[in-house]
Amino acid sequence: MDNQLAEKIRYNSLFDLYGSLLTEKQREYFEYYYSEDYSLSEIADLLKVSRNAVYDQIKIVLSHLEIYEKKLGLLKQKHKQNMIGEQIKALYPNDAQLDSLVEKLKKTE
Amino acid sequence: MDNQLAEKIRYNSLFDLYGSLLTEKQREYFEYYYSEDYSLSEIADLLKVSRNAVYDQIKIVLSHLEIYEKKLGLLKQKHKQNMIGEQIKALYPNDAQLDSLVEKLKKTE
Repeated sequence: MDNQLAEKIRYNSLFDLYGSLLTEKQREYFEYYYSEDYSLSEIADLLKVSRNAVYDQIKIVLSHLEIYEKKLGLLKQKHKQNMIGEQIKALYPNDAQLDSLVEKLKKTE
Repeated sequence: MDNQLAEKIRYNSLFDLYGSLLTEKQREYFEYYYSEDYSLSEIADLLKVSRNAVYDQIKIVLSHLEIYEKKLGLLKQKHKQNMIGEQIKALYPNDAQLDSLVEKLKKTE
């Protein structure tokens, strides 16, 4: 997986976890750029601001997401929990009930 | 359990989850009042502010904690995960390895 794609996946995961802590405007910038894959110029046209303003806003949103992760560590925690979930499933590989409980556990994250 | 105690436990749980998002000053007020059990007047004396100022600060801290829970829902999530963890353990009540993995899972929350 190339770096840019890995980074995009990471930012989307952080946004899923912390998007509710951003302002509506910040969420809008993020979604245009990372979820809908618009270019900076396209977003600038859409929102009638300069390309630089879009760039700055996105930088700010990303730094907020990183600060939240540094403070709360939910993404790191989620990775750890998924790993332990897989270890639990591996104890009884053919137990559908256990499997479904572990999956339910993952979904509540 | 009386209401006041239940409330105190809830606020302490919210503080464990979201304390890192508060300012140092806000954490200080919370800890004096909820962890160290000082009275409003004692905190006012300690911090050389009015009793009303302490009361207002604590109200603000609690409202921040409730807003974070409303937005991120980590406490609710934790309760759900603990419940599912117990259901997983109940499938194999005598499996020490499973038990220890579920406990590990809880601790990463």
